[in-house]
Order: sequence, then C-alpha cells, then structure tokens
Amino acid sequence: MTIRVAIAGCRGKMGKEAVKTVVGQEGIELVAALDYKHVGESLAELEMFPADLDVPIYLDLSQLIEETKPDVLIDLTSPHAVYDHVKVSLLHHVRPVVGTTGFTDEQLEELTQLAQEQKTGCIIAPNFAIGAVLMMKFAKEAAKYLPNVEIIELHHDRKLDAPSGTAKKTAQMIAEVREERKQGHPLEEETMAGARGADFEGMRIHSVRLPGLVAHQEVIFGGNGQLLTIRHDSFNRESFMDGIVYCVKKVMELEQLVYGMENIL
Amino acid sequence: MTIRVAIAGCRGKMGKEAVKTVVGQEGIELVAALDYKHVGESLAELEMFPADLDVPIYLDLSQLIEETKPDVLIDLTSPHAVYDHVKVSLLHHVRPVVGTTGFTDEQLEELTQLAQEQKTGCIIAPNFAIGAVLMMKFAKEAAKYLPNVEIIELHHDRKLDAPSGTAKKTAQMIAEVREERKQGHPLEEETMAGARGADFEGMRIHSVRLPGLVAHQEVIFGGNGQLLTIRHDSFNRESFMDGIVYCVKKVMELEQLVYGMENIL
Amino acid sequence: MTIRVAIAGCRGKMGKEAVKTVVGQEGIELVAALDYKHVGESLAELEMFPADLDVPIYLDLSQLIEETKPDVLIDLTSPHAVYDHVKVSLLHHVRPVVGTTGFTDEQLEELTQLAQEQKTGCIIAPNFAIGAVLMMKFAKEAAKYLPNVEIIELHHDRKLDAPSGTAKKTAQMIAEVREERKQGHPLEEETMAGARGADFEGMRIHSVRLPGLVAHQEVIFGGNGQLLTIRHDSFNRESFMDGIVYCVKKVMELEQLVYGMENIL
Amino acid sequence: MTIRVAIAGCRGKMGKEAVKTVVGQEGIELVAALDYKHVGESLAELEMFPADLDVPIYLDLSQLIEETKPDVLIDLTSPHAVYDHVKVSLLHHVRPVVGTTGFTDEQLEELTQLAQEQKTGCIIAPNFAIGAVLMMKFAKEAAKYLPNVEIIELHHDRKLDAPSGTAKKTAQMIAEVREERKQGHPLEEETMAGARGADFEGMRIHSVRLPGLVAHQEVIFGGNGQLLTIRHDSFNRESFMDGIVYCVKKVMELEQLVYGMENIL
Repeated sequence: MTIRVAIAGCRGKMGKEAVKTVVGQEGIELVAALDYKHVGESLAELEMFPADLDVPIYLDLSQLIEETKPDVLIDLTSPHAVYDHVKVSLLHHVRPVVGTTGFTDEQLEELTQLAQEQKTGCIIAPNFAIGAVLMMKFAKEAAKYLPNVEIIELHHDRKLDAPSGTAKKTAQMIAEVREERKQGHPLEEETMAGARGADFEGMRIHSVRLPGLVAHQEVIFGGNGQLLTIRHDSFNRESFMDGIVYCVKKVMELEQLVYGMENIL
Repeated sequence: MTIRVAIAGCRGKMGKEAVKTVVGQEGIELVAALDYKHVGESLAELEMFPADLDVPIYLDLSQLIEETKPDVLIDLTSPHAVYDHVKVSLLHHVRPVVGTTGFTDEQLEELTQLAQEQKTGCIIAPNFAIGAVLMMKFAKEAAKYLPNVEIIELHHDRKLDAPSGTAKKTAQMIAEVREERKQGHPLEEETMAGARGADFEGMRIHSVRLPGLVAHQEVIFGGNGQLLTIRHDSFNRESFMDGIVYCVKKVMELEQLVYGMENIL
Repeated sequence: MTIRVAIAGCRGKMGKEAVKTVVGQEGIELVAALDYKHVGESLAELEMFPADLDVPIYLDLSQLIEETKPDVLIDLTSPHAVYDHVKVSLLHHVRPVVGTTGFTDEQLEELTQLAQEQKTGCIIAPNFAIGAVLMMKFAKEAAKYLPNVEIIELHHDRKLDAPSGTAKKTAQMIAEVREERKQGHPLEEETMAGARGADFEGMRIHSVRLPGLVAHQEVIFGGNGQLLTIRHDSFNRESFMDGIVYCVKKVMELEQLVYGMENIL
Repeated sequence: MTIRVAIAGCRGKMGKEAVKTVVGQEGIELVAALDYKHVGESLAELEMFPADLDVPIYLDLSQLIEETKPDVLIDLTSPHAVYDHVKVSLLHHVRPVVGTTGFTDEQLEELTQLAQEQKTGCIIAPNFAIGAVLMMKFAKEAAKYLPNVEIIELHHDRKLDAPSGTAKKTAQMIAEVREERKQGHPLEEETMAGARGADFEGMRIHSVRLPGLVAHQEVIFGGNGQLLTIRHDSFNRESFMDGIVYCVKKVMELEQLVYGMENIL
C-alpha cells in the first residue's frame, strides 16, 4: 500500500529536501502541498522543483485533506502554524509528522490527548537525524554500566551558543539513569580556566568550534582499562531525511502521539 | 548483604586480576579458592598475593562449598574443568559466573536445563568487557535503521588471525537484523586486491595490525548525510573486571542460565 | 600590491568555486576569464555569477594577457587545453597555477625548462586541499621514525575505485623513505580473504565505502606503546580553495615550476 | 660498530625499561650502570634483572668511564644528580642522553657551551615519545597554513592538573608561528561556563579525564571545507623507548647540545 503524503512548508530548506526525499521514495506518494503562497498552482510551476512534479498547492488544510485524502501530513513550517495544523490533521484522522521544537507543555499535552481520543498516530521529533537519536539513546543505556562519561561536541565556527542543544539533551538523558557524581580526581585543578569544560551534574561537556566542521558529537565512556565511544557526524541537511521517511512509515502503525524519535526506535 | 565468592583458577592471568578485583570490592567477599596445587594452604602463602589474604585453597569443589558456603563461583579455569565445576555448583545451588567459550552445544543445553531445574542463576560470558558487549549490542540495534555498515578492528601485530573473533561476532549479530545486501557501488573495483576488506554478507571488515595497538574496534554506520560510529578500546586485562563484578551481582537475581552478557545488559 | 588574476575554466565546478574565492579575497583581483563560450561577454551576464561581476571573457589567451595584464593564470580546464595555456602564459611571464594531473613526463619536463628560462613561477598541483597535502607530507616524515604504518581511506559509496588515488600517493611517498618490510605477525592468517587489506610494499591499505561519507583518510603509525594518527577530512569542494589562494600568493615569489603543493609548504 | 652505553638510574621505572630496551637492541651494548646502591655488584645480582645480565655497578662516574669506556651515558636519575653527571660526561667526551626537565636556564646555557667546547654531542629531551614529539612538530607546521586550531587532551582521572604539559607545550609551539587571533564566532556565548575550554592566545584547549584513558592528545585544524587532525596515543611507558634508542644513535653524530627531540627529527 502506498502512503499518501502532504507536506506543509515545501519552500523552506528542510521542505525542499523533504519533497525530494518523498518523491524518490518507494511506497510513498506526494499528493499535496500546503502553503500561503502559490495557492492553486502546482509544485511543477515553481522553479525550485522538477517541471513534472504535478502536486497541487492548497491554502486551507481542511480542503487539502478532503480533496487529496493524505494519510500523513509532514509539517516543516514555523512553530506558530504547526500547532493548528496538527489539530486539524488529527481531527481529520490524518497523521502528523512534525519537526518543530517550539510547543509549550500545555500544547503538547492537549495534542497528546487529542491524538489518543482520535486514535490517530502523531510524531513530533525535535531531531530527525536517526544517527543522532541513536547516539543519545545508546549513551543513556551505556551510562548505566559505565557512569564516567564526557561529551565533546564539535561545530562550525558560525555557531553562537555552546554547548549545543544536542549535547545538553544527551547530558540530561544520561543524568536520568545515573546518580550525580563528581568525575575526575577529587583534587584536580585547572591551571587554565575552562580546561575541564562545562559541568553538568559532574559530567563534563566540551565545545569545539572550527571552520570546516559541520555538526559532530562524541560521547566517551571510561571504565577500568577500556573506553566506549559513540560518535555522530552530520554532514548536511540530508541527514534528516532517513528519519522523516522512517517516521512517515512508523506513524501509520501508531494510535497516539509520540514525542522524540528515541521512543520509536 | 555481602556476596560470598569462591574463585577457581586464581593463579592464571585472569584469575589474579579477579582476586584483586573481588578483594577490593565492597559488598563482595572472597571466601575460598579452588586449585589442584597448594591444596590446604592459604592464598596468603603464595607469593603473587598479599600476605594478609587469608583464603583457604581446596581441591574438591563439594568440600569447598560445604565448608565455606559461597553464593557465587567465579570460574576462570580451562574449558575442560569448567563443565564439571558448573554442574557441581548448580547442584549445590551455588551460582556460577564463567568466562570460558569452550562448551559444546550439548553441554550448554544440559547446563541450561540443570540451572532451570535447580532455579539457580548461572552466567556464561565469552566476553566480560562491558564496553565491548555494549558495542555489539548497540551495533545490532543501529543496523536496523542504518543498514550500511563496515567494521574496522585494530590489534597489536602479534595477533595471528584476522579478522578478530569480536569483529566476526559483531558482523553475525548485525546480520541477524538486516537483509543481506551488497554495499558500495555495484561497479566498484579493487585496483589493489584486498583494499575493500573481507566480505561478510555484504558488510566489509578491515583488520589493522600495528605495534602499539592493544584491542580496538570501530563499527561505522553510514546514512544520508550522516555517520554513526561505535568504538571500543580495550587497553589491558582490567577491562574484564567491571564485567565480572557486574555478573557476580546480577547472577544473584537470576534463576536460570544466561549465555552472553548482552542478554543481561 | 594587489595580484591580478585570470581564470580559465570558470564555468566548471571547480571554476565556479575559484571565482567565488578569488572575488572574496583581499589582495587578489579577478581581471579576466578564458572560455570558448560567451566570448566578448562579461561574467556578470552569466546566470551563475553575481550580476555585478564585470569581468571580460576572452577566447584567446595572448589577447587576454595583453589587454588585462594578469599576474597569475588559474587554470582549471581539461588537461588537453592546459598544456598550451601554460606555455603561452610562461612566454608572457604570467604565472600559471594549475590543478590538473594529466601531463605526460615530457610535457612536465618541457614546461619546467620553459619556466626556468623565463624565470617565471608556475605551480602544478594535483591536489589543492592544503590539509590533504600536509597529511601526506607529515606521513612521509613520520615513517622515517615509525616505519610500521597502515592507511584507512573512507569515501562515499558512489566511488568506483579502491584504494583512492590519495591513499596510493601517500603509500608511495612513505615507501620513498622506509625500506620495504612485511608488517604484522610473520605467521598471520586471514580467516576471511581481504581482511588485512591491500598490500603496498608491506604496508596495508583499507578502503571503506559508505553513504554519508565524503572523502577522508587516516594514516596510523604504530610504535612501542604508542600510536601517531594523521587524519584528513574533506567535506566539500571548498576544501580546495585555501590551497588555490595560497598558490596564487606563493607563485609570485617563484622563478621556476613546482610540481605538488607539498614542495612549497 | 657497537655503541657502548652506560645507564644512570637503572632501578627507577624508566630505568628498568631502558635497561630492557638497550639489552635487546642490536648495535648497542650495555657496559655499566651508575647507582648509589649495590656498588661493586652486577645487575645480574638484582632481582629485577635477568640473572645473566653481567653489568658492573659504579658509584663514581669518572671511574665508570675510565674502566668501561662508554660512548653514551643515558641518565634517568633526578634533576639534582643529572647536572653533575652531564658535566663529568662531557669532560670525558662521553655523550649524555638525558630525560629530565628540571634544568635552570643558567645550567642549560653552561652545558650547551661545555658541549660545544668539548665538541661532544648531548641530547636533553623532556619527552622521549617520538610520536608525541612528531605531533607537536607537525602541529606547529600545520598552523602556518591552517591557523584555526583546537587541542583536546585526554588522560586518566588520577591526573591532577589540566591542561596537560604536552597540551600547553603544543599551544606554545603553535603560537610561535601564527598571530594571536580570536577563534569561534565573535558573538559566541557559553550558556554553561567552561564549555569552550581554556583560552591560549585565542586557541582553545579541552581536557578530558576518565578512567581507562592513559595519555592521548588530538590537535584539530579547521579550514574551508576540511579538517586536519593529528593525534598521539601513549598506552604505556614503552612509548619512551623508541625515542631513547633513536637518541643514543643520533647523539653519536652530534658535536653540540640539542634540547628537545623535535630539533633532531
């Protein structure tokens, strides 16, 4: 059976990649696009897409659903718009796959309940890079047995904040399964401030910033006479596409909302 | 509660490390040693052990069990002896923790059944290095989502066989969860024989041998625009000790035989 | 002083990057383009370039040189055309910077002599990625002191040949400074064919091919109790640009032909 | 020709390794030991050495030199004693190879002058690990072309100070060849203090401390679209031995004092 997919946010960076991915994927068919521009036209008319991509563009989600009967809505628009899209989708038993992080706790709770009532699958994933999600999941599991751990994340030097969101998320997930502990020698001393990195419940996080880097992270666990290292390298936006395809297929089996790909891997 | 432990094979390389580990471990007490030499003496009398290590040495396992009442028997002797030791242990409701690989399928089956009948825990672990076992376990899981994978194992140049047992085991575990697939370009060509490594059901294994290396392995998964790498480094025999301690504690909760630490992590 | 640069081959993949790099570089000015199409137009008229890039396009190199007086000609055309371009350039005391590998030994000799006669600098570089060239140079030097070495090169799975040209070049450079030696255990055995990789004068080369990878190489030297690893990662075509800028500046100081960036680093 | 070697400090950790190395080395012969204990005995009489190691132990260096005619003195004693040993050696035209760091500037200057006057080679090397010295040397050279660099050093968690001496030395060597520059985004912000590591003239140093680690360092250079990484792993004391053998041979060709192995590699 072919899964019928609609995409909201086709013209964005992620959206363009998503269109390309869905169109090239066996078992998935792109049946509609949701946009506030180019309404009534076809994707084929937009210069950024192939001239034979005959997919209609809608302004109104309800109308889109009625006329094109999608199974899944991939939503890559802004947090602002997504919330409404998800609600409308769920009410029509169309399964949303969403890549936004901006929901409030109240919104998440409401959508979770709505998905349950409608017995309709919904996946909200702050990170679609399967490799990154597996890294975090494995790190959390490894910390149960090898509780001494440090995180090194490496990004291009145009990144403003350190540490990265993924590094913090990884540290939080590890902290859930191990007791807080001071690592390193009890008397250790920094002869240059900052050498030992940031301290998150005793585990250290180091942020490297260099031109040439893209987005990388290494989680290193130390035990007696051994090391376990889990590393993820993300080289470009394509890294998100395997995850989106996985979610489109997976959401068809769900009857409730799942937050975070780690919970369906 | 303190776990009372007996060790068979104290004078071997692994055995010596095991004694050191058990003696230094809170919650575990070394109560007896099984050996065919030095019977009737105490470990304290052997030059390789501390002079205050007053632990009696027995020749007969039944007598050892009756007189010193161990909860667990750590067995690091040869495959030949181990089989009998495990049987006697189980019959006395003493839980065996064994680091040998040499059992036949028949023996394994018999011991599995015996453990079940006696409702007595038993762990047989070909590899006690927790990090290595986690690497294999994670690799197997990752391959479900990122089926393109290669293995690089690196060992000292005194190693005779290539690839390593761990590399083969890892490849087998991965093969259980993915369909056989030819990796690389369908038309790829080796201009120098062997460049692409060994082929195991389409996945490639590369063996590096250099002085300075100890025992290392990297499992690399490639996806669109991303890599996931799981690496284990074993620097010395100590790497086995965390696993032995874990097993001694874990076997107390079991009522059957478990083969392979990956099944209790 | 600003260095005046002409580029041959602007519309190719490398050429487009070179234009972008040169235009954004302080101390360098793009004064002309050599092409067999669009002659008489300006780069500004081509869709792929910024609309204000007012750089004239010539068909004839002599005319280009006379009218725009470049100091340097960056040539990124095919091997076929390059040879003539370099000759004409040198005769006009314009310094060529060339990224092609296709010269015959006779051509190289002739051009070397011509450059010397004209006392005009010329750089022919099969690889402009400074990091890759440094890797090879360092590998050659390290092998003098740590002769046990293996090479792991990792590329995307659309690559046809294994090992890569860079891996072979590295091995050759290492072979120049060390005696041939059989590495690994004298009695080592492959239980799976190819595990130990390709053999180049006793040093082993391993080729990894996975989606997600771009172009990477690791040279690992083993000594007693230690390892030295030199690794280069090339993530995209930009990696060649630092080298081109370096060569444009360096060639101004030369009065002869240099083959290979390793000889001017 | 066989090089005749005497060793001062045989019973220390480094000394024992040095004896083992020298004894097993073709072209080098151990002819005497200098010690304040066991004077008049032979190394063979000490339990830590093989029973056939018939090498006389002296208290007085002049007497040792007269009676055993060494070409080279390997000195692995304390800084306190070394200074005198080197002076006496040089005066007798015996070439010192020294692994101590504790000389004052005045002492170094005096010894440098003495070696020159005596036309006698002398090597003082704070670090005998050839791989580590090559890493620093290569890092210094790479920084000329790729000035954006960060250092990650990784050590066992019993180490007290961070960053390591080698990391600081590496940073200093790099600073000699590049202008001070602020790396990373001008507006970058640490949301957790220390994440960006220690700052040495704009280059960042990160110190990882974990059980299982021994002594490792990675120097990462970033350029447009590329990375160059130089890594050294030291797994045990043996890593110093290749360097000592190299120095014993090299010092025979010298007629002056050299400080630091990087100056003779």
